[in-house]
Amino acid sequence: MRIIRNVVQMHTLARRWQKAGRKVGFVPTMGYLHEGHASLMSQARKRVGTHGIVVVSIFVNPTQFAPTDDLTKYPRDLPGDTRLCRSRGVNVIFAPTDDSMYPKTGAGFSTFVEELQVSQGMEGSSRPTHFRGVTTVVAKLFNIVLPTVAVFGAKDFQQAAVIKKMVADLNFPVEILVSETVREPDGLAMSSRNSYLSPSGRRQASALHEAIESAKATVAGGKALNPESLANKLKQRIETQPDAQVDYIAFFDANTLRPAKRVKKGVHMALAVRVEKTRLIDNDQL
Amino acid sequence: MRIIRNVVQMHTLARRWQKAGRKVGFVPTMGYLHEGHASLMSQARKRVGTHGIVVVSIFVNPTQFAPTDDLTKYPRDLPGDTRLCRSRGVNVIFAPTDDSMYPKTGAGFSTFVEELQVSQGMEGSSRPTHFRGVTTVVAKLFNIVLPTVAVFGAKDFQQAAVIKKMVADLNFPVEILVSETVREPDGLAMSSRNSYLSPSGRRQASALHEAIESAKATVAGGKALNPESLANKLKQRIETQPDAQVDYIAFFDANTLRPAKRVKKGVHMALAVRVEKTRLIDNDQL
Repeated sequence: MRIIRNVVQMHTLARRWQKAGRKVGFVPTMGYLHEGHASLMSQARKRVGTHGIVVVSIFVNPTQFAPTDDLTKYPRDLPGDTRLCRSRGVNVIFAPTDDSMYPKTGAGFSTFVEELQVSQGMEGSSRPTHFRGVTTVVAKLFNIVLPTVAVFGAKDFQQAAVIKKMVADLNFPVEILVSETVREPDGLAMSSRNSYLSPSGRRQASALHEAIESAKATVAGGKALNPESLANKLKQRIETQPDAQVDYIAFFDANTLRPAKRVKKGVHMALAVRVEKTRLIDNDQL
Repeated sequence: MRIIRNVVQMHTLARRWQKAGRKVGFVPTMGYLHEGHASLMSQARKRVGTHGIVVVSIFVNPTQFAPTDDLTKYPRDLPGDTRLCRSRGVNVIFAPTDDSMYPKTGAGFSTFVEELQVSQGMEGSSRPTHFRGVTTVVAKLFNIVLPTVAVFGAKDFQQAAVIKKMVADLNFPVEILVSETVREPDGLAMSSRNSYLSPSGRRQASALHEAIESAKATVAGGKALNPESLANKLKQRIETQPDAQVDYIAFFDANTLRPAKRVKKGVHMALAVRVEKTRLIDNDQL
């Protein structure tokens, strides 16, 4: 396994693979890898086969964090990440420096990719410049790594939808796979940010998944509910946890991300909850 | 020579060339081709060689026109364009439909590429959404045609600078060539929009090139001048033509596009002038 920290070197290698006709499966991450990421790597390997190349990028992308976000304290562990990638048969880790991705010298950096529809609402409302940072860095990474297929996690459901829209609109020659959320035994969606939680916060964090399960149970019998009243009920329930504060609870169509008029079986639910100082998200189809 | 009107078909062909390791030279145009475009085709051919592929796209891109611009009356002549391309050894004309580039049905179109630095001032001031349309369509075309090299005309100097910045910032795997402006015998830069001019307007239009030549002569001896006063002098001179109205005259550094504090030999000059109802642009190094 190779670790590449330089954009030009990575791109030269990608060009060589392209000329040789090798399939490249790409997993873009911000590092601090867990079993959720590992399942993306397995998907990528499955898709490109044993003769294909699996590339994992590790880059804590500054442009997708707001000044008030957790950029500087975002957890990092390249040695641990390297071990995990090696154990999962990854061929290349691409871990570029901030400055090679966003040069500050010379002409600087001034081009952005922006999706203006699917990116509205939910994470887009709570974190206004977040998705512009995501689409910009993913466009860059696609152009550098030249993947055949890229795998994203379903935990970041809106992000995956925004990426798919970007790829379709800008005709990026990359297939996008969205891979199922991997959960802890108590249902908490795996996330690098879970490491911020105290033992008590960690216990309270299962409230996100429990809210989804409760909503599922409510609509399982065929009921159609008013979104606001169900969201309020779930919010109250989550906030019985002493350190949990709901940011949003949304019900929507999984393809268009348009808000659902009535919540019923098949509708998609997503939520963001601050537990202690950590903002957690989760989602699932009801 | 093939004419392709379908995005998927074009992309399939491009993938095949890529797998076969063939070099692709790309000339994106809005059609109504003239000798200026033909010189871009020659550059592309020179760069990819006789075994390479030259693709010319013909697409009057709606997203780079403002509602007040000349989109609907923009001149079109696919039979004439086809003849010119054939005579210059072009391999493929890619002339997609509006709807295949910007679908109105389904999820619509909602992703844009925006350069925020080089695109400011000059054309960016006079046509506020113009460059966002240009960078978006060029990003799409690059992803569809997968060129090794793309050739742009120096007549649209700021456009070429914006494209180069986008390619550098987003790491597009495409080499950008900027090819010299081709001029009519009286110095008028070739442009599809010249066809709008009446015989009288056509004669007056040489005032753009004359203004550049006059500025060149002024600084040739080593003088350094105040930009505002030189611009004013040239504006007055141009507007002695009865149907000419200056939009802007700018002096700047050719690399950064930052305004020059003093106009001297080596500084770049660009101008936009409305002649009758037609907006013409030109530029050159002094």
